[in-house]
Parts: sequence; structure tokens; C-alpha cells
Amino acid sequence: MSSALRIALIGTGRIGKVHAANIASCADTELVVVADPMAESAEDVVQRFGGRATEDALAALDRDLVDAVVVASPTPTHIELIGACIDRGIPVLSEKPIDLDMGRVEALRSRVERAVSAVAIGFNQRFDPAIAEVHRRVVAGEIGGIEQLAITSRDPGPPPAAYIAISGGIFRDMTIHDFDLARFFVGEIEEVTAVGSCLFDAGAREHDDFDTVAVTLKARTGAIVTITNSRHSSFGYDQRIEAFGSEGLLSVENVPASHVNVSNATHSGARGPVIEQFLERYANAYARELDAFVALVRKGESSSPTFNDGWAAQVVAEAAHQSARSGRTVRTDEVI
Amino acid sequence: MSSALRIALIGTGRIGKVHAANIASCADTELVVVADPMAESAEDVVQRFGGRATEDALAALDRDLVDAVVVASPTPTHIELIGACIDRGIPVLSEKPIDLDMGRVEALRSRVERAVSAVAIGFNQRFDPAIAEVHRRVVAGEIGGIEQLAITSRDPGPPPAAYIAISGGIFRDMTIHDFDLARFFVGEIEEVTAVGSCLFDAGAREHDDFDTVAVTLKARTGAIVTITNSRHSSFGYDQRIEAFGSEGLLSVENVPASHVNVSNATHSGARGPVIEQFLERYANAYARELDAFVALVRKGESSSPTFNDGWAAQVVAEAAHQSARSGRTVRTDEVI
Amino acid sequence: MSSALRIALIGTGRIGKVHAANIASCADTELVVVADPMAESAEDVVQRFGGRATEDALAALDRDLVDAVVVASPTPTHIELIGACIDRGIPVLSEKPIDLDMGRVEALRSRVERAVSAVAIGFNQRFDPAIAEVHRRVVAGEIGGIEQLAITSRDPGPPPAAYIAISGGIFRDMTIHDFDLARFFVGEIEEVTAVGSCLFDAGAREHDDFDTVAVTLKARTGAIVTITNSRHSSFGYDQRIEAFGSEGLLSVENVPASHVNVSNATHSGARGPVIEQFLERYANAYARELDAFVALVRKGESSSPTFNDGWAAQVVAEAAHQSARSGRTVRTDEVI
Amino acid sequence: MSSALRIALIGTGRIGKVHAANIASCADTELVVVADPMAESAEDVVQRFGGRATEDALAALDRDLVDAVVVASPTPTHIELIGACIDRGIPVLSEKPIDLDMGRVEALRSRVERAVSAVAIGFNQRFDPAIAEVHRRVVAGEIGGIEQLAITSRDPGPPPAAYIAISGGIFRDMTIHDFDLARFFVGEIEEVTAVGSCLFDAGAREHDDFDTVAVTLKARTGAIVTITNSRHSSFGYDQRIEAFGSEGLLSVENVPASHVNVSNATHSGARGPVIEQFLERYANAYARELDAFVALVRKGESSSPTFNDGWAAQVVAEAAHQSARSGRTVRTDEVI
Repeated sequence: MSSALRIALIGTGRIGKVHAANIASCADTELVVVADPMAESAEDVVQRFGGRATEDALAALDRDLVDAVVVASPTPTHIELIGACIDRGIPVLSEKPIDLDMGRVEALRSRVERAVSAVAIGFNQRFDPAIAEVHRRVVAGEIGGIEQLAITSRDPGPPPAAYIAISGGIFRDMTIHDFDLARFFVGEIEEVTAVGSCLFDAGAREHDDFDTVAVTLKARTGAIVTITNSRHSSFGYDQRIEAFGSEGLLSVENVPASHVNVSNATHSGARGPVIEQFLERYANAYARELDAFVALVRKGESSSPTFNDGWAAQVVAEAAHQSARSGRTVRTDEVI
Repeated sequence: MSSALRIALIGTGRIGKVHAANIASCADTELVVVADPMAESAEDVVQRFGGRATEDALAALDRDLVDAVVVASPTPTHIELIGACIDRGIPVLSEKPIDLDMGRVEALRSRVERAVSAVAIGFNQRFDPAIAEVHRRVVAGEIGGIEQLAITSRDPGPPPAAYIAISGGIFRDMTIHDFDLARFFVGEIEEVTAVGSCLFDAGAREHDDFDTVAVTLKARTGAIVTITNSRHSSFGYDQRIEAFGSEGLLSVENVPASHVNVSNATHSGARGPVIEQFLERYANAYARELDAFVALVRKGESSSPTFNDGWAAQVVAEAAHQSARSGRTVRTDEVI
Repeated sequence: MSSALRIALIGTGRIGKVHAANIASCADTELVVVADPMAESAEDVVQRFGGRATEDALAALDRDLVDAVVVASPTPTHIELIGACIDRGIPVLSEKPIDLDMGRVEALRSRVERAVSAVAIGFNQRFDPAIAEVHRRVVAGEIGGIEQLAITSRDPGPPPAAYIAISGGIFRDMTIHDFDLARFFVGEIEEVTAVGSCLFDAGAREHDDFDTVAVTLKARTGAIVTITNSRHSSFGYDQRIEAFGSEGLLSVENVPASHVNVSNATHSGARGPVIEQFLERYANAYARELDAFVALVRKGESSSPTFNDGWAAQVVAEAAHQSARSGRTVRTDEVI
Repeated sequence: MSSALRIALIGTGRIGKVHAANIASCADTELVVVADPMAESAEDVVQRFGGRATEDALAALDRDLVDAVVVASPTPTHIELIGACIDRGIPVLSEKPIDLDMGRVEALRSRVERAVSAVAIGFNQRFDPAIAEVHRRVVAGEIGGIEQLAITSRDPGPPPAAYIAISGGIFRDMTIHDFDLARFFVGEIEEVTAVGSCLFDAGAREHDDFDTVAVTLKARTGAIVTITNSRHSSFGYDQRIEAFGSEGLLSVENVPASHVNVSNATHSGARGPVIEQFLERYANAYARELDAFVALVRKGESSSPTFNDGWAAQVVAEAAHQSARSGRTVRTDEVI
């Protein structure tokens, strides 16, 4: 494998296209297969980024022709595709969540543990330069042990009602990223307390979901994590983290869409709105996620979130889902 | 009452001295009595700010000589002093909390409801210029309805263990300010979920208290409030609020101790630490609190927090105390 | 002089009133005489801050009754009043400028050099907490030697045309503060280059003055100072300084009128306008200026700007005035 | 020309490589020729970005094979290469400066005026997103007419002495960018006043150059421009602009190298140092500069700086050079 890693991409939706562009522009990867049941979409990606198009993902997973797989297809297909990669011994990077059914995730888990090839889960936010920098500085001891972690995540606007219907609910769909970040910073989570409201989104109301939530996690270390989510934000994609330790506070601020300030009769130091779309906000994160996956495949380096990370974040999501509905703190070991 | 309001100050500890200075410098108030069982302390205040000193607070409450009373004595004396003021028909501004025993607070409550003279409770943070500005702009509709409120409050360092022993615990002593602010912004609170850890303070550990907590409140409106407290902060007194509404986010930032920035090989735009002491941070707030109390006495204006506000914040504190120990959401109507 | 310093205040205009309030509230000073030819104005100050009123300033300068004098009367009276204080051996703090006629300033200068009592000039900005902090940190070597200094000073709006008529022009009236700050930070100034425009103010145009100027100073050390002035500013009183040294940049930012930020569909991190009035912006500076003067009188401490500082700043102003009209760099030794 | 624009790149130094990468990644351009007398360097660029390598730039300028030329070779070659493009009718984008000898620039100027093909000059900073945004908002009238413009530009460190020897001096080499920006914002410049010091750089001292300068420009509109340059900066590449108008202030801040803040016992809101290298700081600017050049070639759109812009900025540089040495304001019409 001294030449570029031959990668098969499965799924060519919004995130699939991001992966395709990154695979094409990374010096160490080559896009060889693009699979999507919608032939036209696969063809379009092939035109722009190379490889050959196919409608049959499973048939494309040939270990002689493919060195690694990136799965960006709809959630219900993940289990089968990850399983097929394991069977063939091909390393795979799969988008989250693994599956909405915890039983199916559990079943796959034991197969992954025995697998010889790597399985990575696409929690790209770990690779955001600012978040990664905070993590690195925390690990280096700059602020002492983390005592509190505050994560704010608000989307520009709610998804379509049809999406909410199949999303598994806000905790499994949106907060899942924050659950992974919580584990990234404070380790294993023991207790989960979630509160939700439905204040503005008809789609959420229709499907008995929340559009506004707060989740409190207690880690094994005693550290307390506070997560705040909203399905809308008038000022753009609101993505902030504060790690509070005994020696200081490290925080990731929102990324302003421009570096121009204005002062006038009504404002001082005003900037334009923050970056609005997650693809733009986390563009670097997706690229670095791919780099980490390549390093995993090439050298066995382990900065990629593992299948176990994917499973553990879903356990927290499950507990949050139960907590918000039962009005009590749910221990993660209750839902395993 | 065309001349200055004659005020009796009861208690000359740290906060009592702040009130004394404000009473002396306010054009519309005059310090006429300073009561403290520690005669020396009362004398010292009289030397600096005027009035006569006494060790007997109750004897000083003479309606012919005193137009209003400010109570800054230890918590266990509040009930009796407020009651005495009511009996004599003298308006009173009392420091919080009313009492650590909710039964005694309840008992006083019905007397206050029938009282002819005003009772105000010293939640000074409502009068902080920045917090008051956010409230005014929220009321004016600038950000639409509040959907989420995040309050961060961290003290520079923990109090002595002896103080914790009699404080009633962190929720009744420290978070109580945040509970009042929560009600100030989102109205009545229905559900309270609290999580606590004891991570660094031996005094808290000794008295079975927390030094690190997170509380989630759900208001009758559905708005969700997140409160984060710590008994220490390496970078000074950390006091921030974010009000998130459908149309925008209004936030109160920490107040830096200076307006000097430095950029060098390791930092850009760095300032020195934030203002460290609550007396300095909220100096304006105490002065405006007194102004509001004067307006209440003079004209019946109602911006001062009422006895009912004091009671309601304590109900939330009570619920938080129970929630953190039971691991379940506690409704405020359970503890009334 | 173990009791409070007995101070005579001469002049009760806008700045005179600031001094009166500070003299009254400082524990170590007492206002004993208030002189103003407008008897009513003097009486009004006496009512609020104490002392006795008089219309005759010179008669009030009795060394047995007065320990120190603060001069805040119109510029043309400064020379005579400072001279009278010297003759009587009474320390004096005089507002700037000393006089618009450099010949008269020179004449007084030799008298001041032989005087036994102190003469201080009211360049209050040196005492602004942020400016003083930058100076202290520069002196401590934090940023190495200063290589460039940038001063931005813009007033909220132009003064009345009648004031401009007698002001001596923008350099002698407004930039004079910046010239003093320049000397405070980089020492003696050797070369002055000034450029001016009249862009918006009819009063300035009428009196052949500028409303918009830039001045470049070269210090004996080789450091280069850039001063930017405007007679108006839509966003409030614009007062900033940047000291650039080999090891870093220290800057004084504008002071926002509130600590509230707003983020919405058009802005992120926007604050309200900056503090608008110089009396409010430099309130602390005036109080500390008085403290320094008291220390000068009491202990001979020398942090107050001296008569020589006042003279030297006016020399720079004179050079700037000539430079802007001649289109060439003017050396300060040409105008002495 | 419905297919991609075939571009010849001349010069493969640091900036040449930036152009090569942009030409290769832009959908509407194709790198067809890479010319450099250092064959190895040209080959290396061809390997990475396509085209064929040659040592003979002039021979490569074949109108049948090349649709446009980008000149990034050493300054002394610019005149001949621009002239050759004009002769052949091939549009050319040349790096600045045109030539250090104003006589040669003048001579070429009349040829450019009669040319049928476009000549653009590489003042890339106009295309920086933040600077372009400020320009757009100024043109839209957001802050009224510009009255003052302040440009701060400091390099991380001085260039080698050998470079300074052939640079033409700091005004022609470094400030030239700021002169172009000044013209971009306030139009024609009438008066130039420059002051310089040599404070730290032995190379500058050796070649009788400055390392620290301030330049004041007066525009025909009366607007005053202040430019501050230093050949070093401890905190990275310091690039800021403030446009002050009657209705407000628009400013371009430095770009921090990360979005992580830290607060601890000594700092609050501290960020890491600013972006250090101009290639990184202005990466977007180079890409947009190419886009504008393509639009110029394709559609005759005129947002690219013209030859006349290049000439006019050099006239200002010439005036600054003379002013700093003569100690007087130099009018631009004196040096034409």
C-alpha cells in the first residue's frame, strides 16, 4: 500500500459529497468507487471527484480493489455495511449514528470487538481545529482537571418534519455530537438528566419531539457537563464549548462570518452574523477526520473515534431520551 | 417626608458597610441609626457614615425617628426583624435569604401579605446595570420570547467551612441569586433538576455539601434555564448571563478589571483577569437597589424584589436541594 | 498639616465642578474657598461641596487659610493665578493650557523654576487607570522599548464656533492632550509633522481651523508617534492608545457604555456605543489627578505633570500648528 | 474560449507557487506553461499543478497556446514581460511593483494605454474578503464619506539584508500595498508626508533604509490617511484597517490563528497569536485576485487593479521616499 489509499464511498448526500471532495484532494487517498442507489447522484460525484459509479454498494466492497470504505448512506444501512466491511477485513469509517435500535448496535458490537479490520465512527467535531486545540491543551494540563464542561449547540433552523419522524428524536440525532464531545473531554458518563420543551417547531410537536433541550451529565470523575441545544438560532450556527478546570477556562467561540467590525451610533465592535452552515463551520473537521482515518488504516494510530465511542454516545442519548420523558436522572448502566 | 429618608441599618458586616456607604452618599437618604450587637463595629460605621450606634436593633425601630430599615444582620435574625418592621409599619429592605426554615418563611408570608408597609428583599443582582439592561431589552421584545437562559456564577474561592456549616447548602446560599434571576427573566418555575459534585472543597465535603453544581429549571412558559455554579474560579468572579430568544441572544459578559489589551508572542487581545470581588462587581447594583427601595417607600414603585420573590426563590432552592439528593426532577409545587 | 488639605478652587465651570466634587469626597482634602466672578455659580458649588464663595480669586489666596489651589478658570487667567500662587508659596494645580501666547509661558517658566512651591499642570489623561496601567507595564519592560505609539482621539462633536475662535486652534486645544501623552510614553519630541483638513465643521472653517488632523512626531529615541484627531465621532468619545514595542503591543480600548452583547440576524457580539462624554470617560482620571497633587503637596512625590510638561506639550502644539500651515516638518527646537 | 482559460505562469518563487495552486484548482483556468530560468523549480510546479515547463518565458508567450499570463518573476523582468504580452495581445496579471525606475514605468505606461489586451497589477490585498467587505460597505454609504483611514501593517520579521539592498526601500517595497489600499478607499492622493526611523534592523541600517515608518497622505477629497509600518512584530503579521466616516467606523481586525480563548489567573479572553505569514493571511485574496483577472479576460470586468493603479501607487511611494529624506510634504504632482 505505498500508493494512495483506494477508497469506496457509499452514499452521496450532503455529507457524502464532503467526503468525496476530501478524498479527491487528499494526496494520500484516491476515490475508486462511488455507490448510491440513485445512479445519477453517484455519477455526478464521479464526474467531479473520480472513481466509478455503482448502485450496488455491497458488490463494490472487494478487498482487492478497495483499501478502505467511507459510509455516508442513510442510518438504517450502517449496520449491514459496517458488518460487510468487517467480514471482508476492510477498514471502514461510518457516519453516526450506528443505528437507532440499541439492540442491533449491541449485536454488532461483539462482532466489531473480534474484527481484524478497523471501524471508525464519524464524530467529526473532535477534529475541529479549535475543539482539538482545547482538548490538546486540557490533556497537557493547562487548566488542571476539568470540573465543568458547557456545550452550546444550536442549529440555524429545524429540519423538515419528515426528517424528524425518522431521526429517533433530538437526543439521538443532534445531541449525540455533544454526548461524544462530553466523553472526549471528561471520559465515561454515569448519570444523565435531560429536560426538553417544544416551543416553536411544528414538526417536533407533530412527532412528539423537543426543539429545545438541556442535558446534564455527571462523569465518573465527578465532572458535570451541561449541554444546551436548540433547533433554531437567529444568528447562525451557534457552536461553543467551555472547559472549566481548577486552573482556568478554555473556550471555543463562534466563528464570525467576517473579520469586519463596525462602530456607529447604535453599536460598537459589531460583527456580522456567525458562520451559518455546519458544512462550512466544520469543513476543516471533515478533512482532518479523513486524515485521522488514513493514519488509522496506514499505521494503526488511534485518534479516530471508535465503534465503542459510537456505542457509548448512543447509550447516553438513550438515557437522555428516557430521562426527559420520566423526569428522573437515568444512569447509563440502566440502559446498557 | 420632604426631607431625606431617615434610615436605620441593622448589621454592620461586609454587606452592611456597603449599605451604610450608599445610604450616606445618596442625596435622598440619611443614616440615623446603626445597630449591631458588636458595639465597636456599629461605632466604626457611625464614625464614617453618620447616625447613632446602638446594640439593640429592636429598640431602635421607632417609627417617629426612622422612616425605613435596611436589614443586613445574620440570616437567623431576619424573620424577627422583618416582623418587627411590619408591626411598626416601617418599610424594610432585608438581605436574603429570609430564613433557612421554609416553615418559618411561610408563617411570615401571610403576615407580610396583610402588612401595610413595604417589604423588599435584597436580590441586588437585578439592579446590576448590565443585567437590568438585558431585562429591559428582553421586555421590549428585542429578542422575542426567551426560550433558554444560561446563568454562570462562580465565586473566586470557597467560603470557610464554618460558613458552609450554617449556610443551608450551596443551593440556598449561592444559587439562590440565580434562582431569583431566573424568575426575573422567565417567570414562574415549575420543575427543578439539580446535579452536584464535591470536587475540591474540604469544607463542602465535611458538611455534605457540593462545590460544583448544575441546575436545570423549566418555567411555566416552557423556557429552560441552565445554571452553572462553582465555589472557585482561578480567573476571578465569573458572572455571566445569556438570554436566548427566537430573535437573538443578549448576554452579560464578565467585567474585565482593566481596559488594557496585550498582544505578544503567545497571546493576542489578552486582558488581565476579571473583577474578582462581588462587592466591586456589584457595587452599582447595591446603590441602585437602594434607589429602588427609596422609590418604593416614597412612591410605592415596585421594581424592588418583593417578599414573595424571596419566598419563591427559596422554594426553587428547596426543590434543587431535594432534586440533587434524590436524583429526580422536583416540581416546585411539591415543596410548597 | 496633619488635618485635611485646605483647598481653594478657582473657576466653577464644567471642569471646576468635577474638581469640587473630588475635593469634597477625598478624605484628605477640604474645599475651603470657591472663587468665580459669577457669584451665583460659586455659591452653587459651595452649597453642594462646602467652603465659602468669593468673586475675588486673588484675595482668597491667603497662605494662612489655604494649603493648595486648583485653577480651573479660563485660560487667559492662568498665568496671573499661577504667578500669584508662586509668589505666596502656595502649591497650585492648573488646568491646561498655561497660556496661548508662548512668550508669556516662557516668561512664567523662569519664575516657576525658582519657585519654592509646587506647580502641577492638569493633564488628567495620564491618570486614567488604563493609560496609567499601560505606562506602568511599558516602564516595567513588558513590551521592550517603544518603537511606535498610535493615539486616536475623536470628540463626540465639535465645540461652538465661539469656542474655536478663542481656542488657539485644534492643536493647542485638543491635540495638546495627545502631545502630553506622547511625551509621557516616549520622552522628548524632536520633529513634528502635521496635516489637517476641514471637512465638516462650519465653525472650524470660519476660524481657519481644522476639524480633522493627523500628526506624526519623532522622539529623540527614534520612536514614531502617530496622532489622529477628529472633532466628531458618530459612535461616541473615541479614545484609544497603542504602544508598540519590540516584544508586544499594549493597547487601551474604548470603554463600552455597557457590558451587554447582542447577537442576531445582522450582528454578532455587538455592544452599544462607547462612553460618550469625556467627564464620564475620565472621571477616575480627575480623581487620581487630585490624589497625585495631594501626594505632591504632602510628600513632594512627582507623578503630577510639571509646569515643564505643560510648556513642552505647548511647544509641540506650536510646531504642529506651523507644520500644518507650512507643509514641512518643524523641529521643536525651532519654536522654542 | 468556452473551455478553461489556458494560463502561462512566469516565475515559480513563493508567490508564483501560490498562483500555480490557484490556477490549478480554479474550475475556469488551466495551467499550460510554467516558465522559470531555474528549470528544477519549474519542473516541480509542473509536477504538482500541471502544464509544461520551460526556461524561456518569452518563447512561451504564444497567443495560440496561451490565453493569459501571470507574471510572478523578479521585479526587473516585469517591464519586458508586460511589454511582450501587450505586443502579442495576451492579457497579463503582473505582480507589483512594475519597476523600481519610474522613468521605465512611465515609458511603458503610454504603451499600455494604447494596448488592446488587458494589463492587471497584483495588488492582492484589495481582494482580501474583509478588506473587500469594508470597501463594499463604504461604497454603499454605510459610514458616510471617509474622513480618515488608518492602515497598520507590520511584518513578522525583516527580510534579509540582500533583499533590502534591491528592494528600492521600504516605501517602494512594503508600504506600496498600503498606498494602493489608500487609493482604493479614498481616491487620488495629493500630498505625502513620510517619517522614518531605523530602530532594530541591521540590514536596513546597512542600506540606509528605515525599519519603522509613518506616512500621512492627503487625498483630493481632503480625507487624511495614516499608514504605520514596521519590519517586525512579535505577535505575528499585523494587518489592520480602519475607515472612519461621518456615520461610523468600519475596521478589519487581525485574524487570530485559533478560535480558542483562555481565562486564567493572569489573563482573560486571551487568544493565541495572530496568523503569522502573509501567504496564509492573504490566501483567499490571491484566489479572488485570480477570479477577478479571469472575469477581466472573459468579460472585460474591471475590479482588477489596473496598470494605472500600479503606476499611481508607485508615484505615492516615490513621494514618500523623497518626503522622508527631505523633511517636507511632497505633492504627488511633483514626482510625476
